[in-house]
Amino acid sequence: MAVYLDHAATSPMPEEVLAAYTDALRLVGNPSSIHGPGQAARELLESGREAVARSLGVDPVEVVLTGGGTESVNLGVKGLYWAARAADPARRRIVVPLGEHKATIDAVEWLERHEGAAVDWVPLDAAGRIRLDAFAGALAEGGDEVALVTALWANNEVGTVQPVAELVELAHARGVPVHLDAIAAYGQLPIDVHAVGADAVSVSAHKIGGPVGIGALALARTAKLEALLHGGDQQRGRSGTQDAAGAVAFGAAAARAVAALPLSRVAALRDRLVAGVLASVDGAVLRGGAGPERLPGNAHFTFAGVDGDALLYLLDASGIAVSTGSACQAGVAELPHVLLAMGVPESEARGALRVTLGHDTTDADVDAFLAALPAAVARARAAAS
Amino acid sequence: MAVYLDHAATSPMPEEVLAAYTDALRLVGNPSSIHGPGQAARELLESGREAVARSLGVDPVEVVLTGGGTESVNLGVKGLYWAARAADPARRRIVVPLGEHKATIDAVEWLERHEGAAVDWVPLDAAGRIRLDAFAGALAEGGDEVALVTALWANNEVGTVQPVAELVELAHARGVPVHLDAIAAYGQLPIDVHAVGADAVSVSAHKIGGPVGIGALALARTAKLEALLHGGDQQRGRSGTQDAAGAVAFGAAAARAVAALPLSRVAALRDRLVAGVLASVDGAVLRGGAGPERLPGNAHFTFAGVDGDALLYLLDASGIAVSTGSACQAGVAELPHVLLAMGVPESEARGALRVTLGHDTTDADVDAFLAALPAAVARARAAAS
Repeated sequence: MAVYLDHAATSPMPEEVLAAYTDALRLVGNPSSIHGPGQAARELLESGREAVARSLGVDPVEVVLTGGGTESVNLGVKGLYWAARAADPARRRIVVPLGEHKATIDAVEWLERHEGAAVDWVPLDAAGRIRLDAFAGALAEGGDEVALVTALWANNEVGTVQPVAELVELAHARGVPVHLDAIAAYGQLPIDVHAVGADAVSVSAHKIGGPVGIGALALARTAKLEALLHGGDQQRGRSGTQDAAGAVAFGAAAARAVAALPLSRVAALRDRLVAGVLASVDGAVLRGGAGPERLPGNAHFTFAGVDGDALLYLLDASGIAVSTGSACQAGVAELPHVLLAMGVPESEARGALRVTLGHDTTDADVDAFLAALPAAVARARAAAS
Repeated sequence: MAVYLDHAATSPMPEEVLAAYTDALRLVGNPSSIHGPGQAARELLESGREAVARSLGVDPVEVVLTGGGTESVNLGVKGLYWAARAADPARRRIVVPLGEHKATIDAVEWLERHEGAAVDWVPLDAAGRIRLDAFAGALAEGGDEVALVTALWANNEVGTVQPVAELVELAHARGVPVHLDAIAAYGQLPIDVHAVGADAVSVSAHKIGGPVGIGALALARTAKLEALLHGGDQQRGRSGTQDAAGAVAFGAAAARAVAALPLSRVAALRDRLVAGVLASVDGAVLRGGAGPERLPGNAHFTFAGVDGDALLYLLDASGIAVSTGSACQAGVAELPHVLLAMGVPESEARGALRVTLGHDTTDADVDAFLAALPAAVARARAAAS
């Protein structure tokens, strides 16, 4: 069994979630059916939706269950954009930070290419934090033409927590709806959608121990959204047979994740890992935010003179699973765009390594990583030079 | 336990599929991750994809796994339309039969409303079969402006099997790509996408005993498709973390479904049910195709002088789960549009009942239905008069 330190890519399903899931999978019934089995499925579905709603600080009616995080982001970004533009055709600008997840970047670029949007990319600071002055400037410059703000709640690579309440306040002051991608933040921080005031917030189940293939868009009652998937209108803004068993598993994982907050034990393990790395490897630099501005399970380093992929392979050969960045870009021969947006020189960005911890991470996992790393870095440096 | 005769809405998961699923759910790893756990997940994913491909008569590279049937249909319809229109902006017409599933109707109407498409609706005959003369006429009239043909492989309500090979041949003779919605036909008939020559074919796992929340679009190598969900480009035309465990379960269900063809036992049970209904209930009319032009698990009746919803409730109270039509339209106070397109008078269409059988349907289920039906019809008639 590998030492799994890539929880940001996907996280293991706890036994209690799996048990709730398999119980629900044994029942038959389409929650849209009127008969007894259908209504039993509907009850399961709604119990799951309620738990997801509680985990997001919204009402159940504000939870749109989707086929996963990417669909949630696409629905939030395109759906809010289309609705804003339909209400006022002059609104065609999107304000979005650099360093976003590829789902947002590609959805936004599709709107630009296909639907006539114009995009204003807002720079990050050296810690990966959106520059609020530049953000306010982009909003002011776009004026009444801005249709949408979309931003990560916390960065999925370097773990930097964004000032989301400030972003929403600035955008709403100009009548601009806000979508937040909380996929990386979910289960790591409290996500209170009402408190932050966002119009739509994307999350995914499999990042918190639920199944792959189900996610949610928390959609404020007041938000105006054009649907992405059309059909039976089973949910507001989303058609398709609803996944009762998946909702039960998602709800169980959500309840478990919220009950575990704050992740003090995970953060302490992460801090020990970071201190160990910085103490044992010359040229290691921790990237991203500090203290409360960093996700508790996230550590992200660059190692000077190292190719991150080579380091990943060497650690994998030692039974340690980490990543160079987003799994959604794994294997793509590109430098990490988040680091470049933070001003990290290309030569250093090449040596990126993301280490992400979860509930099941143990002291022994951290020890194993710290034991294997120095030799792996040395070999990777030798190979690169 | 209810007598479940609504397999077209969703079907129970066989124990062997559930066992394969839970085994896969215990593994952690994102199939896009490069490390060992990621690659193990990738192997599971691809083994599932191969089984799905075999069940559709395509190569694994031609299987795009989606979040379910509705996403598949939306991707097939919108994706082929956008790509055809991008290649030739004059191509903006869509030729589509009446009586389609709501996913197609709503996707097509969205393209009409939002993306400048024009839609030609092709009539059905009294058995629910697309009128090939009218279809050929619509293609001829549309000429070089036709971007897309989309049609059900078999009707999800009345079970009529469509002449899909002829549809594809007529469309391809004019250079028009074809999407087929095989969600109702899958697991009931052999689906050989290459033999039929379709560009894209939608299927869903939960209609054949797999999980809700996963489906596929069989997409011919030669097909040109614009993506609907943007992000990590994990698949051709579809972004989003791939569901390895879901693919394993889908593959297990697909292999099982294909091995069970032809559904002679199910068809014989269905024939006995139909004969019993027609013999015991005055004013009962079987709607839809006959012989090989009908799905083996489908029976669809109208009962003169009855409200279908009332009949459904009465049967449900007797522990029998059936439907008036598509679960995706359940509870919607509309007459069944498929029956109206077949020329059934409104007064008769109101008394629709769909009874759909599956692998687990027994002689006792049919007996229970036949025992309960006459009294239920009598009570529904008394209530209506």
